[in-house]
Amino acid sequence: MLMDDMGWGDLGVYGQPARETPNLDRMAAEGMVFTDFYTANPLCSPSRASLLTGRLPIRNGFYTTNAHARNAYTPQEIVGGIPDSEILLPELLKKANYVNKIVGKWHLGHRAQYHPLRHGFDEWFGSPNCHFGPYDNKETPNLPLYRNMDMIGRYYEDFPIDIKTGEANLTQLYLKEALNFIGRQHNDDRPFFLYWAIDATHAPVYASKKFLGTSQRGLYGDAVREIDDSVGQILAHLQNLGIAEKTFVFLTSDNGAALISAPNEGGSNAPFLCGKQTTFEGGMREPAIAWWPGHISAGQVSHQLGSVMDLFTTSLSLAGLGRPHDREIDGIDLSPVLLQGKTIDRPVFYYRGNEMMAVRVGLHKAHFWTWSNSWEEFAQGIDFCPGQTISGVTTHVQQEHTMLPLLFHLGRDPGEKYPIRVTSAEYQGAIQQILSIVQQHQKRMVPGEPQLNVCDRAVMNWSPPGCEKLNKCLTPPASKPWKCSWPH
Amino acid sequence: MLMDDMGWGDLGVYGQPARETPNLDRMAAEGMVFTDFYTANPLCSPSRASLLTGRLPIRNGFYTTNAHARNAYTPQEIVGGIPDSEILLPELLKKANYVNKIVGKWHLGHRAQYHPLRHGFDEWFGSPNCHFGPYDNKETPNLPLYRNMDMIGRYYEDFPIDIKTGEANLTQLYLKEALNFIGRQHNDDRPFFLYWAIDATHAPVYASKKFLGTSQRGLYGDAVREIDDSVGQILAHLQNLGIAEKTFVFLTSDNGAALISAPNEGGSNAPFLCGKQTTFEGGMREPAIAWWPGHISAGQVSHQLGSVMDLFTTSLSLAGLGRPHDREIDGIDLSPVLLQGKTIDRPVFYYRGNEMMAVRVGLHKAHFWTWSNSWEEFAQGIDFCPGQTISGVTTHVQQEHTMLPLLFHLGRDPGEKYPIRVTSAEYQGAIQQILSIVQQHQKRMVPGEPQLNVCDRAVMNWSPPGCEKLNKCLTPPASKPWKCSWPH
Repeated sequence: MLMDDMGWGDLGVYGQPARETPNLDRMAAEGMVFTDFYTANPLCSPSRASLLTGRLPIRNGFYTTNAHARNAYTPQEIVGGIPDSEILLPELLKKANYVNKIVGKWHLGHRAQYHPLRHGFDEWFGSPNCHFGPYDNKETPNLPLYRNMDMIGRYYEDFPIDIKTGEANLTQLYLKEALNFIGRQHNDDRPFFLYWAIDATHAPVYASKKFLGTSQRGLYGDAVREIDDSVGQILAHLQNLGIAEKTFVFLTSDNGAALISAPNEGGSNAPFLCGKQTTFEGGMREPAIAWWPGHISAGQVSHQLGSVMDLFTTSLSLAGLGRPHDREIDGIDLSPVLLQGKTIDRPVFYYRGNEMMAVRVGLHKAHFWTWSNSWEEFAQGIDFCPGQTISGVTTHVQQEHTMLPLLFHLGRDPGEKYPIRVTSAEYQGAIQQILSIVQQHQKRMVPGEPQLNVCDRAVMNWSPPGCEKLNKCLTPPASKPWKCSWPH
Repeated sequence: MLMDDMGWGDLGVYGQPARETPNLDRMAAEGMVFTDFYTANPLCSPSRASLLTGRLPIRNGFYTTNAHARNAYTPQEIVGGIPDSEILLPELLKKANYVNKIVGKWHLGHRAQYHPLRHGFDEWFGSPNCHFGPYDNKETPNLPLYRNMDMIGRYYEDFPIDIKTGEANLTQLYLKEALNFIGRQHNDDRPFFLYWAIDATHAPVYASKKFLGTSQRGLYGDAVREIDDSVGQILAHLQNLGIAEKTFVFLTSDNGAALISAPNEGGSNAPFLCGKQTTFEGGMREPAIAWWPGHISAGQVSHQLGSVMDLFTTSLSLAGLGRPHDREIDGIDLSPVLLQGKTIDRPVFYYRGNEMMAVRVGLHKAHFWTWSNSWEEFAQGIDFCPGQTISGVTTHVQQEHTMLPLLFHLGRDPGEKYPIRVTSAEYQGAIQQILSIVQQHQKRMVPGEPQLNVCDRAVMNWSPPGCEKLNKCLTPPASKPWKCSWPH
C-alpha cells in the first residue's frame, strides 16, 4: 500500500494531533511500526521506480542529467520511462505463479512500451500519471484511466474530481478494485501481489462525499480519513477470507508531505525538516507499517533503517524467490527484522537527481550538498520548508559541503537544526566512518541511462490504447523533443 | 505526576521518533490520551500555582506587573509566593481525610509562609526552587532540599548533580518517596493525594547512572527514560497493592519543552510552534494521560480542551468534594470526559504575565498579542523558536493585534504557520464568537495582587528551617528590595 505525498506526521500513531487514523493506528498496534524508514527519492516517479526495482533511481534511470541535483518525474510530456532492462518485482513474482495487480498511479512512463502490463503486472486499474487538471484536451489532454491494456475514460470527464469541493469517488473505486482482486485470487487459490498505489493525498487532494468535512484537518484530513477507512476494510477483508496469516501487508509513502500544498492540500512531516522535493528528513522519512498476523508480533517498534527498495528484496524473500544477481540491488531483505526483530546495519543514501546529497549511517547524517530550491523560485512563493529556516542548512543555492560535510545526530536532533561542530571528536569519528562508506558506494556506482531528460508534447496522453472505442482519441501535435526543464 | 519542561513531542505515544517511553505509552494505551491539553502559563511557577488553585495566574497572583506581558517565576530572590488567601487542592482534600504529599519541586515561594506544609500538604520531599547551580554559598546559596518542615541538605553538596556528566540520582529518590508514601497510605487505609513533581527534564538535565547513555536522544532522552521507568514502577506498585482501581492517575507537564536548551537539555514540541516562555502551541500544549483502570476505558483519545487547572476541579469532584464558591475557578470538572467520553465546550486563555495573549475557541485560536522575545535577547542567542520563523507571528517586538487578531485553525494548521485571511467568511465568523467570549472573560476578570514583582537577595535560601541542625545556615545580606527584572 503506497501512499502519495503522505507525511510521517500524518498518522495518529506517528503523533498527528487530530488522531483520525484509527485503522492505521490499529494496523500499527497489531504489527510493526518503523520509525526510520526512507524513500529512495523525495519525488514520486523515482521513488516508485525504486520500490519496484529495488534499486536507486541513479541506477534504474529515474533521474535527469539536464542539470545538477534536480528532481525529475514523469509528467505527460516525458519521453522516457522504465527501461526494459530493469527487472520489476511483479516480473519475478510471476515465476512463483503470483497474480500481480496495480491499482492506482503507475508513474513509470505512459508510452506504450512502459505500460505496467508489459512489466510484469497482470491487471491494472488506474492512471499512468498524476491526476492534475482539468485540461482543455487541446493544449493538454486530460489524463486517462486504464483498466488493464486499455483506457476506460479520462479524469474530470468520465472520472470526475471537483476541484472546488474536493469531491471524487476514486478512493472508493480503488478500494473496490482491491477487495475484488483479493477475493478473486482467494477463490482461485492463487498467490497474489497487490500494489495499491492510491493518490487522494496528492494535490489536487480529494475525498468522496461521505468523508468530506469529517476531519479536523480540512480536505487533506478528509482524504486521509477515507484512506484510513479503506485500509481498515482491506485488512478486514483479508481476515474475513481467512488469509490474513498468509498475506504480508506493508504500508508506506512515496515521499514526504508536500508542504508547498499545505495546509489545505498538504500533510505533515513533523518533527522533521522540510518536505517533498528535499533530501532533509521531511522529504524522505516515511510512515511505514508492516502487518502480518501470526508472523509479525503485535506492538513492535523497529528502528531499522529501512527503504522502499527493501520491499522488492523482502517480497522476493517471502515468496521464496532469489533476487537478481546480474546487477546491484540496493534493497535488503528485511525478513529477519520483521520476523525475528533483528536490526541490520546499512547506510541510507539521499539522492536528488544525479547527486548524492546526503548519507545516513547509524544515527548520524552527513549532508554533502544542501539546497531546498532556488532563490528565484523561493521569491515566487515556492517554499519546500515553510516556516523553517536553518542557517547554512536550508540553502537556496546548491551549497557544496563535500570537503566538510554538515553533520547531524538524528537521535538528539531529528529536526536537523543543530550541525555538529567540525572540531568535535564526535564529528571526526562519525565522518571518517561515513566517508569510507560513501567511497565504497561511489566506487561501485554505475549510473543507468537517465530516462527523464527528454520531453515532447507529441508523447502526451492524446490517444492511449482503447481511445477509439470510447471516441476519446485526440490528435497529437508534431514531435518537437526538447531537454526537459527541471527547476528544482 | 507533573513533568518539568517536558514537551508534547517527547513521548512515543505523541510521535517522538525514538519511541523510548514504553511505560508512558502503555499508560496511554490503558487510559485516555489528551491531544489538546494545556498549561495555564508557559512557565513553571505560574503553571504550578494554577494546577493547585484551579485558577489562572492572573487571579492567583502568579504574575508580574513590572512590565507588559512578561513571564515571571520564583527564583531565590523572589519575595512573593502563594498567598494565604488562595485555597490549594490539598487543603480541600484534607476535609475528606486525604493525606497529601508533594515530592519534588514546589515553586510557589520559598519563604516560611509559603511552605507547602502551610498550604495543605502533610509531607514534602523536594526543593522549593529549580535545581540550578552549583553556587558558591556567598553570592548565592545552593538550593535546599526539604523533608517536611526542615531542610535536609543542599543540591550539589548533599544531593549531588554532576553538571559535566549529567549524573544525579534524584529521580530515584523521588521514585522511592512515591512508592513509600503510597505503600504507607495503603497500609493505613487512608485516601491520599500524591503530587509527584519531578524535575529531571529541566535544565540542568540529569539521570542516574543506570540510565546515562541509554537513549538515542542524549542526556535529555536518558532523563525521559528514567522518568518513564519510574512511572512504570509507580503504576505497577498501585496494581500490586490492588489499589489501581481506586487511584486516579494523571500525568502532564508544566509547560512546553525549553527549546533554548535543546538539543542536549531540551525536549520536543513537534509539530507545534516555539516552546516554553511563549503562548504559541509549543509553549502551552502538553502531553496528558489519564489512567484509572476499571473507570477510564483503555485506548481512548480525547480532543477535550483541557487545562492543568481542571485537575483541581476534577480531583475535588472525584473525591466527592465541592469546589469553592467564593471565587472564580477556571478549571472545569473533567469527570464526564474521563468517565463517559463526553466533550465540554470551553475556551482556553493563553496568558503571559498580565496580558491575555491569545484565546482558543473550538479549533480556532486568535492571537491578540504576539512575541517570542526581544531583539536584544534574540541577538544574544536566546531563541524560543529555533529554526522557526513565521512572518508576523513569531515577532521580536510585542505586536498588538487586538483590533485584528491573528487567527489560526489548529486542526488544519497545528503549527500556526498560516494565518487565516481577515476578509474570509471563516475569519469573520470565528472572530465574532471569540470576541464575545473574550469580552465576557475580561468583564469578570479581577486580577489578584501580583506576587512576582519584588526581589530581594536577603530572602534567598540562606537559612532555611533545619539548617542549624545540619550546620548549613548561611548569613543573609541586608535587605535591599528591588523591582524584579523580567526580560521576557
